[in-house]
Amino acid sequence: MMEKKEFLYEGKAKQIYATEHTDKVVVHYKDDATAFNAQKKGSITDKGVINNEITTILFEYLQKKGIPTHFIKKLSDREQLVQKVSIIPLEVIIRNYIAGSMAKRLAIKEGTKSPVVITEICYKKDELEDPLINNDHAVALGVVTYNELDEIFRITYKINDLIKDLFDKINIILVDFKIEFGKNSKGEIILADEISPDTCRLWDKDTLEKLDKDRFRRDLGKVEDAYHEILNRLKTVL
Amino acid sequence: MMEKKEFLYEGKAKQIYATEHTDKVVVHYKDDATAFNAQKKGSITDKGVINNEITTILFEYLQKKGIPTHFIKKLSDREQLVQKVSIIPLEVIIRNYIAGSMAKRLAIKEGTKSPVVITEICYKKDELEDPLINNDHAVALGVVTYNELDEIFRITYKINDLIKDLFDKINIILVDFKIEFGKNSKGEIILADEISPDTCRLWDKDTLEKLDKDRFRRDLGKVEDAYHEILNRLKTVL
Repeated sequence: MMEKKEFLYEGKAKQIYATEHTDKVVVHYKDDATAFNAQKKGSITDKGVINNEITTILFEYLQKKGIPTHFIKKLSDREQLVQKVSIIPLEVIIRNYIAGSMAKRLAIKEGTKSPVVITEICYKKDELEDPLINNDHAVALGVVTYNELDEIFRITYKINDLIKDLFDKINIILVDFKIEFGKNSKGEIILADEISPDTCRLWDKDTLEKLDKDRFRRDLGKVEDAYHEILNRLKTVL
Repeated sequence: MMEKKEFLYEGKAKQIYATEHTDKVVVHYKDDATAFNAQKKGSITDKGVINNEITTILFEYLQKKGIPTHFIKKLSDREQLVQKVSIIPLEVIIRNYIAGSMAKRLAIKEGTKSPVVITEICYKKDELEDPLINNDHAVALGVVTYNELDEIFRITYKINDLIKDLFDKINIILVDFKIEFGKNSKGEIILADEISPDTCRLWDKDTLEKLDKDRFRRDLGKVEDAYHEILNRLKTVL
């Protein structure tokens, strides 16, 4: 058993702890939920447990398909052992359908299928409210090189194809998702953070019911049920 | 002499009139000045006359260097004859130094030299306040194809190199500029609109004095003088 050592960092939904190995850390999933750049705060019962399990399923699936990720193994209900990475401060977003900030920003009806897969990058910086940027901005900010961006987009498209397929099998539309990348001790760019109903928009294919964090953001109720539903459906295709 | 016929369109700084040729229009340069998505309105004495002259100089220079533009000839103090185009609703922005909205958006000190030339595209849509978008958004919005974007950026980089050089010769730093493209009757993508102190940030190389529309935006005074200064310096390299 990997021993959890000193606390390193606390994010909005997770805590990070050191281990006896300098290149491995423990991720602890919390129930805390935030939205709109933390202007809205709350808690979703057992979210940490469910998102740990969902992320474990998805990262193991992606790794099996050749995607490099930080995931090593699930340690407990709320804990994962992962490779230590330095996070690249970009939110990488894929949109298969238009929703959320893009629908608002460009006055497009939510739920419109995009004629092309849309990739966005936002600069992770709370004080600036994670602004949308483009490749030139990211390079000018010094957070990434053009070659690293190419690599990140190459992996991201593959992830989209893979998890869109998987969700399709459980009758879910993958509307959009946000992922983050990090560099491990070897300097490799690998998928980090999580993939869960916190970081995806997931709509039931028949009813278009939202089964993701928008239930929390928009006070739609039955938030826990939605997260459980995603986990239960994913378990049917394992 | 080309006969100006019925009025076609009025923009913030220019009016467009039909001619007897269906593929040619007359552009009339006004003195009206607006800023911050037309929240600030005013007038700059003789701006129309000066910007017509500056744009004429710059578009003739660019055409001589192989850039396809809508410009045909200067007709009078305030009027140009140009190819009729359907405007592609994108503001294409080049930033050699960080200033204005990007400085604010990313909390970078105005006047910082960018380590890479930054290209931005904004969706020209007053109701949405011309939001920054990326290539995928532009294609999803249906305003342009990926190939057309490649062509637009190829021309834009060339324009930057050419006019940066020209301004350098008259001791001016080309901080940033905004251009617009249109499609003519043959479907060719050509430079349209204008290039003037309304659409560029131009700083004196020695004093860093602003010689552009920021004098109007930021109430710095001597707005007309700045526009005249740019025209006078440009005349010295003709």
